[in-house]
Amino acid sequence: MLRAAWQERASLLCVGLDPDPARFPAVLKDEPQAIFEFCRAIVDATADLVCAFKPQIAYFAARRAEAQLEALIAHIHTHHPGVPVILDAKRGDIGSTASQYAEEAFARYGADAVTVNPYMGHDSVAPYLAWAGKGVILLCRTSNAGGSDVQCLDVGGEKLYERVARLVAEEWDGSGQCALVVGATFPAEIARVRAIVGDMPLLVPGIGAQGGDIAATVAAGQTVDGAGLILNSSRAILYAGAGEDFAEAARTAARATRDAINACRTAD
Amino acid sequence: MLRAAWQERASLLCVGLDPDPARFPAVLKDEPQAIFEFCRAIVDATADLVCAFKPQIAYFAARRAEAQLEALIAHIHTHHPGVPVILDAKRGDIGSTASQYAEEAFARYGADAVTVNPYMGHDSVAPYLAWAGKGVILLCRTSNAGGSDVQCLDVGGEKLYERVARLVAEEWDGSGQCALVVGATFPAEIARVRAIVGDMPLLVPGIGAQGGDIAATVAAGQTVDGAGLILNSSRAILYAGAGEDFAEAARTAARATRDAINACRTAD
Repeated sequence: MLRAAWQERASLLCVGLDPDPARFPAVLKDEPQAIFEFCRAIVDATADLVCAFKPQIAYFAARRAEAQLEALIAHIHTHHPGVPVILDAKRGDIGSTASQYAEEAFARYGADAVTVNPYMGHDSVAPYLAWAGKGVILLCRTSNAGGSDVQCLDVGGEKLYERVARLVAEEWDGSGQCALVVGATFPAEIARVRAIVGDMPLLVPGIGAQGGDIAATVAAGQTVDGAGLILNSSRAILYAGAGEDFAEAARTAARATRDAINACRTAD
Repeated sequence: MLRAAWQERASLLCVGLDPDPARFPAVLKDEPQAIFEFCRAIVDATADLVCAFKPQIAYFAARRAEAQLEALIAHIHTHHPGVPVILDAKRGDIGSTASQYAEEAFARYGADAVTVNPYMGHDSVAPYLAWAGKGVILLCRTSNAGGSDVQCLDVGGEKLYERVARLVAEEWDGSGQCALVVGATFPAEIARVRAIVGDMPLLVPGIGAQGGDIAATVAAGQTVDGAGLILNSSRAILYAGAGEDFAEAARTAARATRDAINACRTAD
């Protein structure tokens, strides 16, 4: 589904849906389903420009808005078929509990992929992989400053994030369902991970508001066919405009980002 | 709050609330709020025997039962004041998102503590610590078989879980709000962590259904005053009975577990 989206839509851009009501335009202030309406407007304005959408569940859960998240994902599937939905949840727990989280992500919300934390090992990831056709995106090297506290520890001559990439590529991903999160703030590290994992998809947060450089990211992470990347931007697109035309502003920002990415690719 | 609960209730037992409707007694089958009613019955039957309750959020989220989780935690606070509620969520994300998860755990659900994954580093933990008086329980060494895949990697002469224990004790826990998760299946490793972290509380899952040995766990993990441990049992207590008297059966199992723990303590 992801590979088809890359090809047919000629885009590596993923729009992250991190809805913060404090930043919504005034026109939505009295809307009871404001979180859904905001995200729906962004989705409808940008769907033809993206290879995926990535709702961040914390923004919904903090505001008792699970029903709005369900409605949002259903809206994407109904009105924009072929656009995969990545539920950004970063779950990680023992097998019996992981099965419940997989049920949450794939059955309840209907997500096509979910982000998962590797710290608890292979048997904490297996219950997601048991859902055939669903994607499992493991945290590898994250874009925040503190990411290096643990991920860059040296483990026998390589860094922990490199070992995690190797574990996923060589041992956990027998079924081709896995991808990795690698932050855009560290292009040299994206290149290291790419060298380890072959053509496994990489989800790269941190372009846009977090400051990652698009050209360096694409050069470091693209596969030989100029794809292999899901480049996420959230705040720089969601809050590109603050007025009634916020969705149009988001579209303009998304198109510019998509085009900037495509200009850096060796092929498309 | 935890230290007072240890002392006043003379118990190190935590009952984990992992409600699986497939295992509920027949008497609850047609109950629309079965998850809440099951957990409430367990809570009311065991509250005087425990130092904490630990609801596992995945079991609620997989079944659209967030409102029942809210009601359950409110019930504990109202009817059993002084018993801390640990929300087992194992969250882990960049700072801006972690703030949303902290809002979910502490404001929405009213939990007294939350479990957090350390893989993303200190700035992914800080937003929880910003809630004064709330507990932040970091995953260190987990009780599942795959836990060793990443946690036991050698990082410069010590294992990753030992380094995580050291990071939390020496760098992240300036305010005394932190605790660590260390599985009961590895008593020698509990002893290693105890040696690193002084009298920091340890949440120990895996006694009961997961097979951890109580005597070895208490010997390895107790502090000099015979406390320092939150020993969690979930399934062995929740599903001790399958009939109408399931809550009484849970009470009997909880009392036996509490007493077995207390018999191993050097003091109480």
